[in-house]
Formats: sequence, structure tokens, C-alpha cells
Amino acid sequence: MNQVGVIMGSDSDYKVMEDALKILRQFELDFEVKISSAHRTLARTLDWVKAFENQGGKLIIAGAGLAAHLPGVIAGATILPVIGVPLSSGPLNGIDALYAIVQMPPGIPVATVGVGSARNAALLAVQILALQDQKLSLKVKDYRAQMAGDIAAKDEALQKKLSE
Amino acid sequence: MNQVGVIMGSDSDYKVMEDALKILRQFELDFEVKISSAHRTLARTLDWVKAFENQGGKLIIAGAGLAAHLPGVIAGATILPVIGVPLSSGPLNGIDALYAIVQMPPGIPVATVGVGSARNAALLAVQILALQDQKLSLKVKDYRAQMAGDIAAKDEALQKKLSE
Amino acid sequence: MNQVGVIMGSDSDYKVMEDALKILRQFELDFEVKISSAHRTLARTLDWVKAFENQGGKLIIAGAGLAAHLPGVIAGATILPVIGVPLSSGPLNGIDALYAIVQMPPGIPVATVGVGSARNAALLAVQILALQDQKLSLKVKDYRAQMAGDIAAKDEALQKKLSE
Amino acid sequence: MNQVGVIMGSDSDYKVMEDALKILRQFELDFEVKISSAHRTLARTLDWVKAFENQGGKLIIAGAGLAAHLPGVIAGATILPVIGVPLSSGPLNGIDALYAIVQMPPGIPVATVGVGSARNAALLAVQILALQDQKLSLKVKDYRAQMAGDIAAKDEALQKKLSE
Amino acid sequence: MNQVGVIMGSDSDYKVMEDALKILRQFELDFEVKISSAHRTLARTLDWVKAFENQGGKLIIAGAGLAAHLPGVIAGATILPVIGVPLSSGPLNGIDALYAIVQMPPGIPVATVGVGSARNAALLAVQILALQDQKLSLKVKDYRAQMAGDIAAKDEALQKKLSE
Amino acid sequence: MNQVGVIMGSDSDYKVMEDALKILRQFELDFEVKISSAHRTLARTLDWVKAFENQGGKLIIAGAGLAAHLPGVIAGATILPVIGVPLSSGPLNGIDALYAIVQMPPGIPVATVGVGSARNAALLAVQILALQDQKLSLKVKDYRAQMAGDIAAKDEALQKKLSE
Amino acid sequence: MNQVGVIMGSDSDYKVMEDALKILRQFELDFEVKISSAHRTLARTLDWVKAFENQGGKLIIAGAGLAAHLPGVIAGATILPVIGVPLSSGPLNGIDALYAIVQMPPGIPVATVGVGSARNAALLAVQILALQDQKLSLKVKDYRAQMAGDIAAKDEALQKKLSE
Amino acid sequence: MNQVGVIMGSDSDYKVMEDALKILRQFELDFEVKISSAHRTLARTLDWVKAFENQGGKLIIAGAGLAAHLPGVIAGATILPVIGVPLSSGPLNGIDALYAIVQMPPGIPVATVGVGSARNAALLAVQILALQDQKLSLKVKDYRAQMAGDIAAKDEALQKKLSE
Repeated sequence: MNQVGVIMGSDSDYKVMEDALKILRQFELDFEVKISSAHRTLARTLDWVKAFENQGGKLIIAGAGLAAHLPGVIAGATILPVIGVPLSSGPLNGIDALYAIVQMPPGIPVATVGVGSARNAALLAVQILALQDQKLSLKVKDYRAQMAGDIAAKDEALQKKLSE
Repeated sequence: MNQVGVIMGSDSDYKVMEDALKILRQFELDFEVKISSAHRTLARTLDWVKAFENQGGKLIIAGAGLAAHLPGVIAGATILPVIGVPLSSGPLNGIDALYAIVQMPPGIPVATVGVGSARNAALLAVQILALQDQKLSLKVKDYRAQMAGDIAAKDEALQKKLSE
Repeated sequence: MNQVGVIMGSDSDYKVMEDALKILRQFELDFEVKISSAHRTLARTLDWVKAFENQGGKLIIAGAGLAAHLPGVIAGATILPVIGVPLSSGPLNGIDALYAIVQMPPGIPVATVGVGSARNAALLAVQILALQDQKLSLKVKDYRAQMAGDIAAKDEALQKKLSE
Repeated sequence: MNQVGVIMGSDSDYKVMEDALKILRQFELDFEVKISSAHRTLARTLDWVKAFENQGGKLIIAGAGLAAHLPGVIAGATILPVIGVPLSSGPLNGIDALYAIVQMPPGIPVATVGVGSARNAALLAVQILALQDQKLSLKVKDYRAQMAGDIAAKDEALQKKLSE
Repeated sequence: MNQVGVIMGSDSDYKVMEDALKILRQFELDFEVKISSAHRTLARTLDWVKAFENQGGKLIIAGAGLAAHLPGVIAGATILPVIGVPLSSGPLNGIDALYAIVQMPPGIPVATVGVGSARNAALLAVQILALQDQKLSLKVKDYRAQMAGDIAAKDEALQKKLSE
Repeated sequence: MNQVGVIMGSDSDYKVMEDALKILRQFELDFEVKISSAHRTLARTLDWVKAFENQGGKLIIAGAGLAAHLPGVIAGATILPVIGVPLSSGPLNGIDALYAIVQMPPGIPVATVGVGSARNAALLAVQILALQDQKLSLKVKDYRAQMAGDIAAKDEALQKKLSE
Repeated sequence: MNQVGVIMGSDSDYKVMEDALKILRQFELDFEVKISSAHRTLARTLDWVKAFENQGGKLIIAGAGLAAHLPGVIAGATILPVIGVPLSSGPLNGIDALYAIVQMPPGIPVATVGVGSARNAALLAVQILALQDQKLSLKVKDYRAQMAGDIAAKDEALQKKLSE
Repeated sequence: MNQVGVIMGSDSDYKVMEDALKILRQFELDFEVKISSAHRTLARTLDWVKAFENQGGKLIIAGAGLAAHLPGVIAGATILPVIGVPLSSGPLNGIDALYAIVQMPPGIPVATVGVGSARNAALLAVQILALQDQKLSLKVKDYRAQMAGDIAAKDEALQKKLSE
């Protein structure tokens, strides 16, 4: 059973969305990845959503650039929480994708993270799943502690460098 | 046979989209109007698109605000030209809707008009239909001549007022 | 046990955040509401987060305007999922709050919804809790069906009005 | 007879506008290309529009950057549908061109596509011409099927890569 | 002989553009006013430009909103200096008009003033004409002195109010 | 001796800048207020800056809207810290003023506060002066405690209201 | 006697402002160039303005980036027309400079050209000076004819290339 | 005793924030530097603030990118003046950080400088400390004189180059 589904509209999005996969692997979550478009392969996208739901999927992370409709269209097709990742592509630097994802109409929310922040999308998925998984919850706490430790280490390195 | 379909995601959009209906009536085009959402009633929206196509429909005008997905989703579901009207609702003043409509990914175009400009959407539909309808073409020319005449009349009125 | 905590930095935010409470009541979820600031009462805010966690809270909805730090600061203080609602206050129309909430640095996600969309924040909370609550899941499906029905009804009313 | 006219204000725009020509060639449409400016060679531009109309032209694709007036000026000079392509040039990244094209005043529409999206402009032209050309309509459907197939193939490739 | 021509695309712009007329009257400059559009009555606009030039006109002030092409199109049709006034109309608050006026391509400048600042457009015209008119130059200096005096008077009034 | 000088370019700014005066009075700081412009009365402005410095002034708060040059010009004319308040006037909602104040070139800083936030400008002045004034420092701490108390009181009122 | 003065706040601006010098040389206008800042060397800047005026100068072109105050401050210090060139430097891409120059308060206009468009600034200066110089006027017409010719030549080259 | 504390959320910010250190060294001010995050190591950040205050610290310079909360959170935790440096990181070019820092809610000011302008942050700190340090005040005046001298030298170099 894959708990998390990661979907993107184009293989050119993979380079950024891969950050999400790294986190999911790090937290040992089963996931599946899909390339499918809200416009070019809508039926296929909706089929995947249903299949993902039926096999017991819990959360969908959807990344899209430009007039990014993928997260919103999926959010309308399932009651699973959908996490949207606006991708920066083209001259508007991802502002177009951000607005097209976060400004969902009343009734159908998309949990939006920062432009290009596939890593935070995956961490949000992890935190949601940790609500019902004590072990995962401890891993998140460890992850946070490690981030804090990294900052402390970098600070120490800087102090050393400055005092030389 | 309705040549033009006008669709919007919410009845609150009707107040603006009505401008399109006025133009379509003025040019004596048969049209139909639909309220249906890309997120809340996607299947119903896609059904309407197919039915509209099957009854011989030619062009779809779709108005939407916020993360406006309706025009793009319809554009992916039909090869009829889709004209998108970004609507200004909420604090971002329609910039969100503009970006969410005009910045469509490669392959699926939406013919976008100005924020709130349902009138121009309808005129664009009329001009497209006039490509194969000589009488309609003459009506567009008349409409343009009348607009030009209105400006001349307003100019004259202003000249008169200023010379008093 | 309150599953959802709703927090805002100022009582002037209540008017918008109340939309979230209505949804939570409609879905019969136990929740608590807090006014506390990330800047003016940080310790109190952090205390509340800890207390909310300890009593078994699951999700936090945080609304804030301007340089909206409340959701992010809370997200850093807990591993519970935090849903951020950018509020439109002042001349920048909530773009300031949107950027200050959604653009969280790597490691600490905030699930951001549209500017002023407290209703979607609550629905997102409901959908997350429905992952482990079959009854709630059915209620969300009912809610969706009702939204779809409302649109169909409004469409019908429009068709009737136009055919008169 | 050239059905589509593609016009741009400067030869530096050719690099992007060439995407439109590729699509038009792929769909075997006769077209002509013109470099002419709305400001520097207005009379020549208007002459071309008239000549294009007289030889039976149906649609004009106009690309322009900065304070992009070319599409709008042409739209005022003909009742043929005009498709505008905002080009990204200079520090404002094409937002200037987008606003200068899409925000046309009431009465004179320009069918605007995404910033730099000459390909979508051509596809929109193809879809409009397909309204009266059954064979072209089938080609568009093939094109769409091929795009869908490409996505499926890329997805398959990704699945394979991930399962290795 | 009218030295200054003031042109706008619609009579709805008159309310703002009237500020320019007040300044021109105050400086006792002969001027003429025209309502004519770059899109709806282009030939008429170009005719007016030529006639204005021929009767000895020196400067043109052009106000326009939305995708404001009027100043740029006129600038391409004459070598008289053209002063553009971006007008705020519609949901984009005049940013659209500002970009569509100020971002003119190389070769054809438009002297752009602030959004809605018809008064500054007229003062710029006055300052340009004062280059060859000693008396006008003195009037500008008087005007400046009076503005400075007004500020001093307002400051004095405030000091008085605060010390009460 | 007035420690704080509050200057604005126009008496229309007084309505907002008055918030700063209230704070300065509340903290019992001596201050003076000036209306003088960076453009219309530059010499007078520079004279005031020098006079303010000479009488022992410590800090200048400068509010301005539109292309807000007053804070920056003063910052170039003195080494006293200058606090800039961008004011929202006209269609750009104060974004123009914000950029014109905060984006100072290297070498001449302006301490910028939020759009329209004269109150924060004054509080910043108070905090700077408190660096060398133990009594003032205590007052700031009291002020902060009172703000925290207000929030607690509002929270309590809300809890009471919700539990009724 | 130098008719045109070109001033910039930093030598790093020279690379862009040089475009203006090329045009001024091409039109054989006498000009002088100055590096002086509105903030770091205000007195020197004002001295230069006065000296430039006294030696018979007619027009000032001022280029500046970031919170670009130089054009506006000069405009307040002289009644000669001031042409402002917003320069793109730093992360805001010149939007900061554009707003800081074009949005001048009522009474003190700056004739603003496009971001980075020093060439257009110089052409505007030439067109203003041509108002009182028949020979210069003919040169501008020649320049325009040559630009038109260039476009025609580029068009011809493209036609040739496409027909090969 | 370190009078100035410079803090940043990540070691990747050091490259820009180092500009502040150079200025502080140049003015011979004692300072300390800290890497600590508002989200990942909040307690550590607050501890540092308290320790910095207790050892006699006077001013804090905080740099942050994206949803930049560090300056604001610190400002809420101390009554020492906090100077915020918005850093440009990611696709929004620092606009996100600017809004997240400058738009602080009423009561807790952050003295904001331009995007990436760590140098101006340090100079602002120096100017504030110079209020109570006559020698430092003279150094600032020297620094200003030197900047003015640099501009004069660059101008001279340019004059020479142009006259060759």
C-alpha cells in the first residue's frame, strides 16, 4: 500500500519534485509517482486518483508550473488531502503557479507550500501521516532535532572561522 | 443549435458574465449558459462540454475567478476554441485569475481576454464565427462603425461643451 | 479533547476566522480558539501550542495578516500540521501575508490556503482528520455532494430565469 | 491563399515566434510571416493587414514585447480574430507585454496566450480554423492524442527508472 | 494656434484629464482637446495628429487606461513630444496602463507621468514650452514659488494647531 | 530640546502621521512636526534638518507617499537615523512609496517600517532613544506588557463569548 | 553651450546611460555628462544643475536605479524638463526605480521612459529640442525613416530566408 | 561587550550578511555573529537574544530570506532596535522576504533596509550608535565624505575619458 502519491504534469518537473521523493524515502514511507496532466490526460489523471484512493492511498502531492491546475483538479476529485507545489517555470517565476494553486475557490482546499518547495510538501505529508503513526512522529522529531543540530554546527563552524 | 456556450463556476459570476450574453443577443447568435464548476462538479462540466459539442456548439466562453481552472480544464476536454474571462473576486483583484487562465501549458491554449471583460470575450466569439458567416461579418463591421460613431459623437459633445 | 486549534494574532481577525469555526461546528469537530500573537505574546503562544498538543490536539489553523509570522512560528514549535490563512489587512491586500506564510524555509512546512479563505483551512483540517475517521469521511463526501447540488440548483434557477 | 498571418515587431522576436511556424507547418496550414512595427512602420503594418485580409486571410497571430501594442493596433484595424503573444524581453519579464495585450478596452478583443507561448497561439489558430475544416479537426485530435501518448510514455519511463 | 493637444480614448477619461486643462488654462496656453481611440477610431486619431501638427501644434498629452496604446501609437505617428498619462481603470489599478505606456520599444519614446497625474502631464508640457518662452518660464517659477508658499502656509497652520 | 522630528511632505499625510505623534506623546518625548517637501521646498527641508540637528535632535521620522523621496533625501543630508514611513496614496496602494523608501542605494540607509505604519515608526524611535535612557526603556517594557495584556484580555473575552 | 545634461548617480550606471550619449552624438547635440548622487553628493548635484542651467542648458536626462531619487530631486531644483531613466539593478529588476521615478507628486513632473531605456530618453530630448530647431527636426524624421527602413530590410531578409 | 549582534537563519546567508561585518569592522565596533533560525532553533535564538541583551548588546541586525520571520520574531523578544535585511533567495527575488519583514503588525517595529542591503543595515546600526558616541559620529561623517569623494573621483575619471 502506497500512502503518498506524488504526481506532476510533465517529466520536466521531476528534477524539482525529486526532493519530495528523497524525504519520503528518508522517512521510509511507501509512495508512488505519476506523470499525468490535468489538461492533456485528464481522464488518466482522474483514473490514477481513484486507483490511488482504492489501494489505500492517504495523501497526494501534486506539483505544477504556469497556470498550475493539477493540484486543484485533483483536489476536486478526491477528499484525500492534496498538497500543491507551485513550480517556477517560465518568465513569471512561479507566481503564476502559486496563485493558480493557493487561491482555490471555497469548498475545495489545496494545502499549498512555497514555490519549488517539494521538500516541504513531503514533510507536510509526513507530519500529517504522523498523526496516526507514533513511530513516524518520533522520526519527525528526530529530523527536527537534526536540523537544529545542523544549524548549531554551522554556527559553531562560523564562530571558529571568525575567531581565527 | 447553440453556437456559443457560456459557462461560469458560480452564480456570483453571472453579474459580470451577463455582459457576454448582451453581446451575443445583439448579434443574434444562439447560445446557452451553464453554471458548473471545475472542482465541485467536474463530471457535470465535462458532460456539458461533450453535449455542447455534440449538438453542434462551436465556441465556449468560460469565466472564473481566483485560481480560475474552469477555462483550462474545459480547453483540455475539447478542441473547440475556449475563451477565458478572468474575473476579479477577492483581494488579489483578478491577477490570480488572469495568471491561472492565460499561462496555460504548451499544447492546450485558452484565448484569454482582459480581467472582467466578458464583453470582449463575446466579441471575440462573434469575430471567430464571422469567419464563416458573411452576414455576421457585416454586423461586426456595423458594430465597429457604431463604436467609432459613438466616439465621434462624444468628441463633438465635448468640443461643444468646451466652446461654450 | 479538542482536535483542532484555531489561533489568530488579533481579535480583528475573528470576523474572517469565524468562517473556519462554522465549518468545524458543521462537521461536529471539537475545537478551541485562541487569540495570541507571535510577536506580542510569543511565550503565551508557545505555551498554548504545547498545551494543545498535550491535551491531544491534532491540527492547528493559524490566521494572520501583514508580515504574518504566526503560522510559521507555530509550525516551528510543533510537529502537528499547521494550516496557515493569510488575511487581507492593510494596503497590500494580503499579498504580504500570503508570501510571509507560504514561502516557509526548507524543513518547516505550513499548509497555506487562499487569502482570507478560513473556510478552506477548516475543510482541509476536516479532510486530514477524515483520514482516520470513517464517519467524518462520509460527512465530507456529503458536503461535497451538497456543494455540487447547490451548483446544479443555481444552474437550474438560471436556466429557468433565462428561458422566461 | 494564406489562412494565417504571423506578425512581429522586430526580428529579435523571431526566435520565439518560430514556435508558431513549426505548429502551422505541422498542421499543413498556409501562412505568411511579417516583420512590421506598430510604432515605427504603422502604415506598412496596416497595409499588410488589409492585404492579408484581401487575399483571404483568416487569422492573425501577433507577437510583441515591452509595451506591446502590435496585437491591439491590428485588432482595431480588422475584424479578423487576432491572437496576441506577449514576449518576455527586458527586465519586467513579459508582464509589461502581457498587460499591454490582454487588457484591451471594451470593443476590440485580442485573444491572448501565455507569455512567450507562440506554440499555443498557433494551436489556437488551428483550433479556430478546424471549426470549418473537418480534416484539420481530426489532425488536432491526433495531436492531442499524441501529447497524451507522450505523457504516458514519459510516465512509463519514469516508473521503469524508479523500479530499477 | 493651439500649442498643446490633449487627447483621450474615451469620455470617461475626461474627469481625470480635466486636471491637465486646468493647468493649461492657468498658464494661458492655447490648447485643443480630442476624444479619439487608438483602436476604435485609429484613422481619425492619426488625422487629428497630422492636423494638429499642421496648424502648428507642439506637444501632445495623451491619457489612456487598461492596455493603453493611445500615447504610443501617437508617438509613432509624429515627432512631436508625446506625454502619456496612465489612467487607473479596472481591477489592475492602472499598473496595466503604466506598463503599456512607459515600456515603449527603442526608438519611439513616450514621456510618461504618474498614474492619473494629468496635472503633472500638463506641467511637463508647460516646462517644455517654457524652453522657448521667457514669460512662460517666469510663470512656472511663480507657480513653483506658490506651491512652496502653500507648503509653508500649511506648515505654519499645523504649528499653530499643535501649539494650541 | 526636541529629540524626535516628524516631517511629512504634505498636510494630507498628517491624518496618518498623527499616529506617530500619539506614541511620542504617550512616551513623553519632546518632538517637533514639520510639513516640508523634498521637491517643492527642498532648501527649506534641508534647513529644517540642519536646525533640528543643531538644537540637539536625535531622530527623524519622515512620511511620504507616491515616489516618496523625502526620507531618502533627508537621510543623505544628516547622519541622524532616519525612519521612513511609506504612505498609501493613489492607485498603487503604497507599493510605490515602499520601494522608493526601502530600496536606498548603498551608503545611505533609511530605517523603513510598514506601509502606513506611523505608529511603528514612532515606537522604533522610542526603542532607539531607550538605548540611552533607562526610564524610557522601562516605559517600552510597560508598553509591551500592556499590549500583551490587551491580547490576553481579548482572548479571555472571546473564550467567554464562545462558551456562552 | 551644452543643451543636454546627462547625469547618473554612480559610474556603474554608465554602461546603460551610454546609449543616451550615442544618440546625442548621432544627432550632433552638445551635451555634458555628470556622475553625482542625490544622496551622497546632493549639494554637488544641485550645484551642477544650477551651473548647467546658467550656461544655457535646456534638458536633463537623469538615470538611477533602486530607490531612484536623482531625477525627482533634480526636477524639484529646476524648471528645465527632466527625463528620468529607471535602471534595473538588484533583485527588483528596476520596478523599484520605475515607481520611484514615475510616481512623482503633483507639481513636479519627471518625463519617465522605460526601464533601462536610455536611448529613448535621449530621443525624447532630441524631439523636445527639435521643437525649436528645424534642422534637428529633419534629422529626427530621417532617423525614423531609417528605423522604418531597417524593419523593412529585416522583413525582406526574413521573407527571403523563409522562401528558400 | 559586543554592541551589535548580527544573526542569520542559515549559513547560506553569510555571503550577503558579510557586507555588514565589513562595515562594523571598518567602524571598529565590537560585534558578534550568530547562525540561528526562527523556526528550526527558536529557543536557541531567543536564548541568544537574551544573552546578547544581558552582556550589554545594543542593536541586532537580522537577515533572512523567503518567509523571513527571524527579524520580526526577535523584535518581539527584545526592546533593542532590530534591523531587518530581506535576502533574495528563490524565485520571488526577495519580495517575499521584504514583505515578511517590513509589514510588521502595530506595536513591534523592525527597521527594514533594502533587499540584500546588509551594508546599509550595518550603517544604520552605526548611525544609531553614533547618537551616543561622538567619535563614531565623526567616523560616519568621514565615511560620508569619502563616499562623496569617490563619486567626485569617478566623475572626474569619466570627464577625462570623455574628453579624450
